[in-house]
Parts: sequence; structure tokens; C-alpha cells
Amino acid sequence: MTEFAARIDKARAAIAASGVDALCLSLGSDLPYLTGYAAMMSERLTMLVLPVDGDAVLVVPELEAPRVDTSHGIFGLRPWGETEDPVAVVDRLLGGADVVAIGEETWSTFLLGLQQRDEHRTWIGAGAMMSGLRVIKSDAEISALRTAAAVADGVQMALRSQQWSGRSERDVSNEIRDRLIRGGHESAKFAIVGSGPNGASPHHEASSRVIQRGDAVVCDIGGHQDGYASDTTRMFVVGEPPSGFDDAFEVLREAQQAAVEHVRPGVTAESVDQAARGVIADAGYGEYFIHRTGHGIGMDTHEHPYIVEGNETVLEPGMAFSIEPGIYLPGEWGMRLEDIVAVTGGGAERLNTTDRSYTVVD
Amino acid sequence: MTEFAARIDKARAAIAASGVDALCLSLGSDLPYLTGYAAMMSERLTMLVLPVDGDAVLVVPELEAPRVDTSHGIFGLRPWGETEDPVAVVDRLLGGADVVAIGEETWSTFLLGLQQRDEHRTWIGAGAMMSGLRVIKSDAEISALRTAAAVADGVQMALRSQQWSGRSERDVSNEIRDRLIRGGHESAKFAIVGSGPNGASPHHEASSRVIQRGDAVVCDIGGHQDGYASDTTRMFVVGEPPSGFDDAFEVLREAQQAAVEHVRPGVTAESVDQAARGVIADAGYGEYFIHRTGHGIGMDTHEHPYIVEGNETVLEPGMAFSIEPGIYLPGEWGMRLEDIVAVTGGGAERLNTTDRSYTVVD
Repeated sequence: MTEFAARIDKARAAIAASGVDALCLSLGSDLPYLTGYAAMMSERLTMLVLPVDGDAVLVVPELEAPRVDTSHGIFGLRPWGETEDPVAVVDRLLGGADVVAIGEETWSTFLLGLQQRDEHRTWIGAGAMMSGLRVIKSDAEISALRTAAAVADGVQMALRSQQWSGRSERDVSNEIRDRLIRGGHESAKFAIVGSGPNGASPHHEASSRVIQRGDAVVCDIGGHQDGYASDTTRMFVVGEPPSGFDDAFEVLREAQQAAVEHVRPGVTAESVDQAARGVIADAGYGEYFIHRTGHGIGMDTHEHPYIVEGNETVLEPGMAFSIEPGIYLPGEWGMRLEDIVAVTGGGAERLNTTDRSYTVVD
Repeated sequence: MTEFAARIDKARAAIAASGVDALCLSLGSDLPYLTGYAAMMSERLTMLVLPVDGDAVLVVPELEAPRVDTSHGIFGLRPWGETEDPVAVVDRLLGGADVVAIGEETWSTFLLGLQQRDEHRTWIGAGAMMSGLRVIKSDAEISALRTAAAVADGVQMALRSQQWSGRSERDVSNEIRDRLIRGGHESAKFAIVGSGPNGASPHHEASSRVIQRGDAVVCDIGGHQDGYASDTTRMFVVGEPPSGFDDAFEVLREAQQAAVEHVRPGVTAESVDQAARGVIADAGYGEYFIHRTGHGIGMDTHEHPYIVEGNETVLEPGMAFSIEPGIYLPGEWGMRLEDIVAVTGGGAERLNTTDRSYTVVD
């Protein structure tokens, strides 16, 4: 049995256990996780219909049918032509299904269309059941994450010997994307370059701001390699660090280290958050750490388990997530350090291994 | 009044006319069209709540709040913290709204969450009302599309003097993405390089296949510049064209030309499709033209009006769309020619202006 066939069997068992009659997957990583095929994001619906006791069928736009590998035989193909209504096609495939689970990222327009065609069906989110399948990574998956992390690490290392001052954030960001692709990534999903005060906006996009001496720069980069995500943040300082930066950075390093050291099977996700947050709060920076400590990673950059207060998920070997505390002083500077870690039998393996000191650049 | 404030007023008038109490917009271009702010695609909900008679509020993850420009005063900001439930925040903002329109690309997980919180509300798709606002472009929008098209045209021109044989599709595709970015695009959304038999898969992604003499290559490229999309397809032939290619290509050029010449105010979208399809069918290639003739374009690469059988939308000045017939012989070759056109007072302006002959390359 192929890995995909085994995964589909597990998905079928999961929906049966939940009292669900069929699973519908469209955009997002659940579909390629089960089948190897990723839906294209567009107004043309792609949807796998997996009945609890019947053959799986992939409903796909006719012009995209040539992209689909069906040699594995794990699903049938139902191409729909440009003048057909794909929602009607899915509705007919669902037949008498009363309870249907639908992938989290499916566009609402398709869910509403399906709901209107049969008002007696109950729709539930497929998120919990699918993340239940995906949250424990196989050795091959951890290896893929390790490879992706190594490429991102290589880019962070290469940035150390570059000229920074006088260049726009966007220019550095474009260099990062280019280096990720040349390193083997099939996509460079983000390349945050937050310089000076822009660093205080955690999800800042690279702008036309010209990097100058005295800037601290948040560099948070990632993409996908062979279907698995990379995500790592390092700090760069152009010349001299800004006022107050060094003291806070020591706190940040300690917080990140404390959280990594806390990771082991049996502890909760929220306790890892607390391990980092406690260090930052004790040093008086608590109000400046405005996001969770981390997120799971795999085929998606963000997936379960989320390392956040309230998440009582107990860690198990094979889980993988980021540990990325930050401190953000509005109008002044920001800082974040991020590694991906995999839970092992006795603790955590860091998949990102570059030096966590900030790098002084010109 | 700013342009955004005027658009929000129009949206409010549209929802009032539809008997809708509130509009909820998340992912996709509807939100930046109305506000200038685009939601980040993630598991953290961003949603504008626009009541028919009340102030608009943008619900946004706290860590992304620094990215939001609120100086225009057209919406209030409701940042939500990492331990809050954003669906509950939106539900409270909706208050007594009975009928709510939701953006097409909103993830199902959020729609299901909102439906479960108040089972008496009726949810409808916001697609038709939002495309009603967006389908007629202003002069400034047509100008933005013209600029984006010119950059993509420049990339197609540059490809004419490159070496093709011996390079992988992916290598050429990466060059295209790089050139689009260097030309000023903020994103290179796609760079289809379909060589030889791969060209017969209309949405083929660039692969490791090495381009060789005798290949015809479909080159369909686009991205975004200043928020507006580019999308153009040209054909390249490495050395000598494959058997049967020249005859079919003459038919394709005629079909594309016939469709462009057919465009003018007052004709239907489907009649433009028929103008291209008729030429191809009459020449005996009908079964190999497996997609609609085109799609609207603006902030989205694909939007209304779709140039497809069954779409009786009557064209008006200010509409913009692609005209991109294709002929695909499975296992052998494919071909497509694509220009963006804007409907004018008396006909159509082509925004892509490079030569539509195929280019012979080495």
C-alpha cells in the first residue's frame, strides 16, 4: 500500500469515528497530504469527495485534469467542463450523505452553494480531524523539515556578509527570496525585512524604507521545499544597536532558550508558551510580546499544535513547531528569534542551527 | 471624500438594495478594493464588518494591527489578542443583523463558526454585489492595468533573445519571475512554461523537463503591479515547429483576432467566446479548445466578467478581460495566445501589444 492509500484509510477511519458520512477537501494542505495533488487557488472548484464507504473522487476543472496523476489509483477523476456547475457535481457525489466535513480553507462561496443545494445536510469543519492525522510527523516528514530548515539557515548565513545600509528593505527581501529559490525551495513564501521602527510590526512586509546605520533588522524568512515549510528568524544590527536593544536581546535569547529546553513529550503546548513568556514578563517586557510563542509546521507554515495560552495539547514525539518569542517597542525597534523544533523521545531537536546572536553588519 | 470612502458608500448602497444587513469581507480583493487593506492569508482571522447603517470595523490580529493604516478614518480597528476568539468578536459586531453577505474567498472554517454562533442568521455570498462594484474600471484602474501589461510585455520581449534549449522549464520560469519583479511587479504570481507535450496541459506548472529543439513552448506569465494584475501568453518555438503546429497556429491567431474585433459595448460576454470558438471549431480543432476564452481582470487575475458560454453579461466601457483561446493536442503540443483588452466607447483597446507571431528561439 502506498503512503497516500494508507493516509486515505486513516482519514476514512477518522470520519467514521466522528459520525461523518463524507469528507470534502479543496484548497490547503489536507488534500495533497492525502493524495499528493494540491488544488489550484481559483474561482474554479477543485474538491476531493471521500465518502466513508465508497470510492474517492477528485472533482477538477477539465483544463487542470492533465496535471493530475491518477496512476496511484487512490481516487477517480471527475473533470468538469467550463459550462458545468461544479457545486452540482459535488452535491450529486455526496448523494445521501447527511453529515459532511469540509476542509478549513475551502472558499465560503462553495460551502454556501453546497448548503443551498441540500438544506438538510449538516456541515462541520474538517480541521480537527485532519490535524489529528497530520500533527505527528513521520521520520520522512521530519527529515523534509530538516532539509527545508537547512536551506533557510544557509540564506541567513549568506546575509551576514552582505551590505545592508543604503539598501531598501524590499531589495534585501528580494535577495532572500532569490536565495531561497536557488537553494532548492519551490516557493519563497515570505521574506520579512523589518528595519528600525518597522521591526516593531511583527508581520511587516518589506517596504521601500532604506536601511540605515543604527537599525536593528528583523529577518523572518521561509518557503517550501519538496512540500514542507521552512521558517526562521534572525536579527541583524547595522553598526551600533539602538538604545535599549542589547538588554532586551539578552532577555529574548534567554526566553527562546528556556522554551526550547522546556520541550519534551508530556508537557503541554501552553506550557512552552509560558516558559518563554515568563522570562520576558519577569524582565519587564511582557506587554511588548504581543503574539503566541509559536505554531506547528509541516506542509503548512502554520498548523497545529499552536504554542499559545489555552492550548492544552500534550506534546508527543514527531510534533514540530516554531519557538519564536519577540519584543516590540512601537516606534523604536523590534526583535524576534525563531527556530523550528521537533519533539524527540526525550526533548527537542532544533532544526535551525545558526548562531542566535545578532549579527553586526555594515 | 476619498476614493475608498466613496467605494464604501457604494457598497453600503448595494447591500441595502439587496436587503442585506451587513457585509463581512476577509481574504481576497474585495477588502482592499474598499479599504486599501488586504488581509493576510492565515489561520488568524481578518474581517471587515460593514453594517448597512453603522460604522465599519476591521477585526484584525493584534500583531498585524501595526500594518493597518487607519488615518483615512473609514473604519475602526478591533485588534484581537492571541487568546481571544475572533469569530465571537465578529458575531458580537454583527449584533441583530439577520442577513449577512460574506466574501467569496473567506475560509469555510470561519463561516461555519459564525453560522454555529447564531443559527437564525441567513448567510449569502457577497460575490455578485462586490463584482457589480468592481467590474467597471475607472480610468485610473485601466491605467494601472496598462502599466502592469507593459511590464509583462517587456518580459515577453526579453525572452526572445534568450537561449531556451538545454534549460529546464523551471529555470526559464524563475527567470520570468525575476524579470517581472525587477520590472516593478510586487509579485510574480505565475510563470507557466509548458514545453513540448507539457504545453498541452493549460495550467501546467514549470517542471524539471529540459527544453529541446523542436519544442513549442507556452509562456503564460503574470503578477501584480501596484495592486493590479498582468496576464499575457506568447508562444516560442525552439528551432523548427512540431508537425501540424503551423496550420493550427494560423487558426489560433485568427480566432484571437476575431474575438478582439468582436468586443464592443452592447455585445455579450458569451458572444466574444463564440467569436473565438467558432473560428477554431470551423477549422476542426474544436475538441482541443478545452477552456473558456477569457476572464475579467483587475485587482484579481481572474474576476468578472468571464468570457464563457452562458454568460449573458452585456459588455460596457471600462470592463477589462483576457482573450486567450488555445489549442491543445494531448501528448504532442499546446498553444495559447492571450491579451488583456479593455472595452472602450467603440470597441476594445489591447493592453498587451507585443507581436502575436510565435518567436523562433535557439
